Amino acid sequence: MGDIMMERELEKRAALVSGAIEQFLPVVHPCGLYEAGRHLLDSGGKRLRPSMLLLAAEAAGGDAAALAPAAVSIELIHNFTLIHDDIMDNADVRRGRAAVHKRWGVSGAILAGDTLYSKAFQVLGMTPAEPKRILEAMNVLSWTCTAICEGQWLDLEFETRDRVSESEYMEMIEKKTGVLYGASACMGAILSDASPETAKKLDEFGRLTGMGFQIQDDVLDLTAPEKILGKRRGGDLIEGKKTLIIIHALAHNVAVDVFGRKDASAEDIEKAIKVLEESGSIEYARSKAVMLVKSGKDALEVLPDSPARARLLELADYMIRRRY
Amino acid sequence: MGDIMMERELEKRAALVSGAIEQFLPVVHPCGLYEAGRHLLDSGGKRLRPSMLLLAAEAAGGDAAALAPAAVSIELIHNFTLIHDDIMDNADVRRGRAAVHKRWGVSGAILAGDTLYSKAFQVLGMTPAEPKRILEAMNVLSWTCTAICEGQWLDLEFETRDRVSESEYMEMIEKKTGVLYGASACMGAILSDASPETAKKLDEFGRLTGMGFQIQDDVLDLTAPEKILGKRRGGDLIEGKKTLIIIHALAHNVAVDVFGRKDASAEDIEKAIKVLEESGSIEYARSKAVMLVKSGKDALEVLPDSPARARLLELADYMIRRRY
Repeated sequence: MGDIMMERELEKRAALVSGAIEQFLPVVHPCGLYEAGRHLLDSGGKRLRPSMLLLAAEAAGGDAAALAPAAVSIELIHNFTLIHDDIMDNADVRRGRAAVHKRWGVSGAILAGDTLYSKAFQVLGMTPAEPKRILEAMNVLSWTCTAICEGQWLDLEFETRDRVSESEYMEMIEKKTGVLYGASACMGAILSDASPETAKKLDEFGRLTGMGFQIQDDVLDLTAPEKILGKRRGGDLIEGKKTLIIIHALAHNVAVDVFGRKDASAEDIEKAIKVLEESGSIEYARSKAVMLVKSGKDALEVLPDSPARARLLELADYMIRRRY
Repeated sequence: MGDIMMERELEKRAALVSGAIEQFLPVVHPCGLYEAGRHLLDSGGKRLRPSMLLLAAEAAGGDAAALAPAAVSIELIHNFTLIHDDIMDNADVRRGRAAVHKRWGVSGAILAGDTLYSKAFQVLGMTPAEPKRILEAMNVLSWTCTAICEGQWLDLEFETRDRVSESEYMEMIEKKTGVLYGASACMGAILSDASPETAKKLDEFGRLTGMGFQIQDDVLDLTAPEKILGKRRGGDLIEGKKTLIIIHALAHNVAVDVFGRKDASAEDIEKAIKVLEESGSIEYARSKAVMLVKSGKDALEVLPDSPARARLLELADYMIRRRY
């Protein structure tokens, strides 16, 4: 399947999710709160996580269309984390829009995020499935949210440290990014009455591909054409973000002069990127992303062959093949 | 039952809840996050909400001791709201301790609150009860959390407005304070296999007494001895908080000169309190609190007579009789 086919498949599911967001998160009294909550949700995005949930449900033999509430719950959790993370990172812009705290203030953004958080559990509770299954899915979601908080805490803590080991970094991205993809695939399976083993394998699939996706994101920051990136290359570098690339470089005594120097010139940044290419640090991260996605795909062997399973495999490749 | 007996009953349950918090929210890696999350939880408090849950369970014929996880979940949600509210109000101190954001920064406090939020659902999921019942309780909790966010949003919005009507104020305190007491009593009933009617009546009991408690809090700010209050009288007044007392005064064209004047002298504040006594505004709020608690207690007629029911009735009275 080519990129265009994959994108069509994703768009179909994204449309379903967007419609369900309208339905399950209407702008009601007090409107300001719900407008703030909908701000980023309405700016689109590829809806990769809820699409993964729906594809996992199909692949596990479930009725994906019935799982729209569960898919929405995943997207609400994702957006809640974006809103709160943007406060913590003091980010101005997200998806081409003002960050929620820039428009509604820090208090408004804290509350908008908190509202999406509880709405996620509310909406998940409306999924037409056996109570036992919904409860299992809710347990997955609550454990996942705790792990996401831990991951974000580690990410902030790393900023204050000189060195971060590769295993610490891997733990951080697993919690910050991996677990929500894992929960997406796993909840799709659980709500389709899949066996515990299948659910576990789908969690593994989502978690590993999600981690690959995150590492690829770090790679793209250094390698993608600026036109596609929508911003200057090397932003993470001059902000001093401890990505896998930097961790590899530091471990191999590669001097990255612009690291953490926000005033670095474009020329110096490009030079540093060249150094990281030559040291093999970028390639190291790139191949790590590929390996993670490969392991994730292997976990899908638990499923019988089907068009939906093939699409999940394609989605995994797509997640590290392109991003903008 | 006198105050001392009631306090003994509460202390017994508070000890159970504190022990369960140790068990269900251990300080684990990353320790900083969990220390921040435990900071206010460990500073005590009367644990009125979880105690109400346990008493409601007893009164509904359930095994209260088994519901420790559910009781903890309520206390976690309460503390999550305290942590986030303190950021929004820029409060320095809570329960005699530094507010979480003062010690761990705004980012740390946002994450500590978010962690208690998901932990509440996690821990509730560990209650030894039928999946169907746990799911019902989770649905109550998620709807409640959304309502609390709405209530806090309204509270912040009221600060920016000249006038707030009594019904708007009542909606705000119902959501900000009432619903969590309602959820406490209701979840205690649900998890004790009570009928939907009983659960509904217990929600009503908790909600109305919680609202009475909140209004009494506003009254105490103007009438309690400063020694008991632990701070200067009239703090809400000079901060311009639109309490029921102020709403009544404004509606009756009572001039409250110090309202919103943070630099008002102690003498002027005492004068203003006297004006509010004479206008009947304080008495109006006081009697409203009494009426709410009375209606709440009436809802308990759904339960058969029992020592636990008698204690719930006592708890309701206790909530507006004393506070410090």
